[in-house]
Amino acid sequence: MPRSRCPLPALPILRWLPRYSLAWLPLDLLAGLAVGLTTVPQALAYAELAGLPLQYGLYSSFMGCFVYCFLGTAKDVTLGPTAIMSLLVSSYASHEPVHAVLLAFLSGCIQLAMGLLHLGFLLDFISFPVIKGFTSAASITISFNQIKNILGLQGIPRQFFLQVYETLRRIGETRAGDAVLGLSCLAALAGLRAVRSQVPRAGPAESLAVRISHLIVWISGTARNALVVLFAGLVAYSFQVLGSQPFRLTGSIPQGLPPFRPPRFSLAAPNGTVPFQSMVQVGAAALQGLLFQPQHLLSASQNGYRIDPNQELLAVGVANVLGSFVSSYPITGSFGRTAVNAQSGVCTPAGGLVTGALVLLSLAYLTSLFYYIPKAALAAVIISAVVPMFDAGIFRTLWRVKKLDLVPLCVTFLLCFWEVQYGIVAGVLVSGILLLYSIARPPIKVSEGAVLLVQPGSSLHFPAVEHLRDCVCSRALAASPPRSVVLDCCHVSSIDYTAVLGLAELLQELRRHGLSLAFCGLKDSVLQVLLSADLEGFQHFPSWEEAGEALGCSPRVG
Amino acid sequence: MPRSRCPLPALPILRWLPRYSLAWLPLDLLAGLAVGLTTVPQALAYAELAGLPLQYGLYSSFMGCFVYCFLGTAKDVTLGPTAIMSLLVSSYASHEPVHAVLLAFLSGCIQLAMGLLHLGFLLDFISFPVIKGFTSAASITISFNQIKNILGLQGIPRQFFLQVYETLRRIGETRAGDAVLGLSCLAALAGLRAVRSQVPRAGPAESLAVRISHLIVWISGTARNALVVLFAGLVAYSFQVLGSQPFRLTGSIPQGLPPFRPPRFSLAAPNGTVPFQSMVQVGAAALQGLLFQPQHLLSASQNGYRIDPNQELLAVGVANVLGSFVSSYPITGSFGRTAVNAQSGVCTPAGGLVTGALVLLSLAYLTSLFYYIPKAALAAVIISAVVPMFDAGIFRTLWRVKKLDLVPLCVTFLLCFWEVQYGIVAGVLVSGILLLYSIARPPIKVSEGAVLLVQPGSSLHFPAVEHLRDCVCSRALAASPPRSVVLDCCHVSSIDYTAVLGLAELLQELRRHGLSLAFCGLKDSVLQVLLSADLEGFQHFPSWEEAGEALGCSPRVG
Repeated sequence: MPRSRCPLPALPILRWLPRYSLAWLPLDLLAGLAVGLTTVPQALAYAELAGLPLQYGLYSSFMGCFVYCFLGTAKDVTLGPTAIMSLLVSSYASHEPVHAVLLAFLSGCIQLAMGLLHLGFLLDFISFPVIKGFTSAASITISFNQIKNILGLQGIPRQFFLQVYETLRRIGETRAGDAVLGLSCLAALAGLRAVRSQVPRAGPAESLAVRISHLIVWISGTARNALVVLFAGLVAYSFQVLGSQPFRLTGSIPQGLPPFRPPRFSLAAPNGTVPFQSMVQVGAAALQGLLFQPQHLLSASQNGYRIDPNQELLAVGVANVLGSFVSSYPITGSFGRTAVNAQSGVCTPAGGLVTGALVLLSLAYLTSLFYYIPKAALAAVIISAVVPMFDAGIFRTLWRVKKLDLVPLCVTFLLCFWEVQYGIVAGVLVSGILLLYSIARPPIKVSEGAVLLVQPGSSLHFPAVEHLRDCVCSRALAASPPRSVVLDCCHVSSIDYTAVLGLAELLQELRRHGLSLAFCGLKDSVLQVLLSADLEGFQHFPSWEEAGEALGCSPRVG
Repeated sequence: MPRSRCPLPALPILRWLPRYSLAWLPLDLLAGLAVGLTTVPQALAYAELAGLPLQYGLYSSFMGCFVYCFLGTAKDVTLGPTAIMSLLVSSYASHEPVHAVLLAFLSGCIQLAMGLLHLGFLLDFISFPVIKGFTSAASITISFNQIKNILGLQGIPRQFFLQVYETLRRIGETRAGDAVLGLSCLAALAGLRAVRSQVPRAGPAESLAVRISHLIVWISGTARNALVVLFAGLVAYSFQVLGSQPFRLTGSIPQGLPPFRPPRFSLAAPNGTVPFQSMVQVGAAALQGLLFQPQHLLSASQNGYRIDPNQELLAVGVANVLGSFVSSYPITGSFGRTAVNAQSGVCTPAGGLVTGALVLLSLAYLTSLFYYIPKAALAAVIISAVVPMFDAGIFRTLWRVKKLDLVPLCVTFLLCFWEVQYGIVAGVLVSGILLLYSIARPPIKVSEGAVLLVQPGSSLHFPAVEHLRDCVCSRALAASPPRSVVLDCCHVSSIDYTAVLGLAELLQELRRHGLSLAFCGLKDSVLQVLLSADLEGFQHFPSWEEAGEALGCSPRVG
């Protein structure tokens, strides 16, 4: 089973807390603050994207921080609502918070179960082309989805193609105020990001002034989302005071923390209570449960360290289950905020506590101010968050490196415009089938000669044995006189009973034609299995030369 | 893609018909007759088992014979209703012929699609332990299912455990007549089978008398089902004439051939028409579509030849689709009748024509006689057909050869007592997960030394690369000073982009720690991919010795 990285895999906090040094404290505080300032505006924006009341974005943003601080293995991964999760929720929860919360609960349970059963390895089966395919497609669909808010259009359908059509058709109804504000927010965010990436962090050598100016640039770059939203809010407020309102505003958000209560499993409808169509829910939950991986994988790999899938599954699972008790919708590791966290020089997961606290505070006291946040500004926040996820280069790269991988990539990418979840599922299926095919039909090297030397190119898993049998028989009996066979198993690392049976039948079949089959290059484990099965006429030799001699003639290796 | 065995894979008849020799004709006729005499009683019995009106057994028995004659690749496989299919149908069709026929249509379509898409290799993923598990369990459940008919009990529930309970509880209500007849039929069938297997076929050397007696024994053994049913029917008839009837009879069966019409896709119910719950139907259909393979596999392997899965899928698919137009329920290759066919010395699939004709004739003229067939006799026919499918030895064998394979076996076997289909699905999932795990976590041989020599034990599929990265990094950085790594890829036969990416990250990570990574033993195809990805710092050598020297020191192989 997968090895765990720490003495107590269940509670990684015990690994860093005991040796926590005060030197880390300011850095963790700063990082937590920076992430928090990104989280709050993003939370509101993603809730909008998920089609839920905006407070649910904040409800979803604190539990993950607290839980991950205790159960997380990576110091800078931050859990919370993400663009892709929100997109999926919007397509499943149908604007019904109760659905979304139940979805969080179910996917949490699935993640917990997988983590406890050490099924984390299953997540490795989401191949990179699939991840790239759906993140790229999602960044397009999500950006476009937000254009309606930037243009101030309303009543645009959710489905991508209809959306494009409707948006273009009604482009004339664009509201000047929203458009101007939205575009300038986009420009500001892009600018601050650029500046931020240009300016290096000031070393202690430079003068105080330089360092302070550096710090200002750095902070404004890191907290750009908060700044932009704040600024936009102020603009909207001043207009409000002046009595006119050119922007669509977020509107009032109920103040205070969410109640702590278990998610509801059925919905009171006018015609009695309707139990949720559990199939769909569970399917969606499973999908969301699995989707946590790509995001983690990306966050982790870009920050150059590895994570223990099973432990992370536990952490995210607990976060989702507990989250569902405080009306959270499904959360996962956020790509962007994890980057912010890393760049802010976080030292331990303790930074999450600060972020969580910040979210709670804003829920408790700031919701009244959120009233004035223009939707266009939130849209800008989302777009600037998802645009970096688009990667056009991947198509060129795959064409150059491995054309076959273009198939899952394109399948995923294209289907994602129909429905993201279909795209992902189809992509995983396609890359799965490609994988299974290479397992069921491994390359088999056949060297002609007085004796036929057959060498399975890779390990001999049970689905491949029938194919091997066909191949060997047809080749051995094709020539006249039919030739005996030497099976070189140097690449076979393990063998199961189905494969053993196939080999037994192969032996029988060859003997029926008066031919013999000799094995060589068997690994000990494989040899043990074959011996214990005591196949009749089974003979093995250390090398194919000896095997060939034993069969009466030495094979010529082609 | 899978190679086809003949110039025109779509129409294998073109391979044997042109060179059909008259010498084969009598043998084919005889075999067809023998199979027909087995088919008719079994068809009635299986329809009873499937919980359908008995004529549907016959409706299902002729189309397969005709179609397979044109599309089949194996000379002695005979398509038709089988015990396991009937069991599945009984659990899905809920005594509703319309459901069963639609099921045949759907599974036929699925088989056709898979055959045309060359997805036949997917069927290799039903591992032998799973097949053994469900056939063994099915032989028990089916036999027990028929005991109620032998004892003449009625109103016994379908679910296995309830069945056992009810049967034992009401054992007192056993009807003497049915019990006596049923048991004697069982004895007769067992006896005839035994005799048949004892007596060899007479050679031309022996005297005429000997040969005739041999022939009689042989025929009575081969057509034992027909004989027993015929005899039982006569007994029942004579009782009828005498005015008393100690047996439960089959009752009247509508005469004549089934109408040729497409299957109905919705069912007229008192409250309007109800469309079928397509999910369940399709699921069941998929299952039945896939299940054809184990039966074929068994039939084929026991008769010592191989079949082209894709071609067989086409044949069975067409048979099921066309069958559904003549009110057939799902059919597949019959284990027992295929054996009869082989033992009767059939030469070409042409034998199927005779069988089919025989079924049609009995539908046209004999149905009135079927009235007198006692249900106990049919039960005996089923039991004697399924008992040989039970294989207790497999548990011992697996314990001896490969204990891990006991897991899928036991899961399948035990769950099959709950519902056969659950057992099969669960078994395939379990053996699939075991397979996937061995792919995602291949054995990695690490030889300590001044340089770390790492050798993936088998091919490096994308799910394994993360694991390899973890393993290499942890080992390389564990020692002090950290050591450079030589990656010996001699077992790696192919590589995809996800794996390339993992290796690239591994390179980066090691260089971050000032270590280098050298590849050796790369196959050309793999080398091409790695070169085209131009990883920075990528270096490769023919052998690990050279690689070790290049890294400044030679690795000591542990």
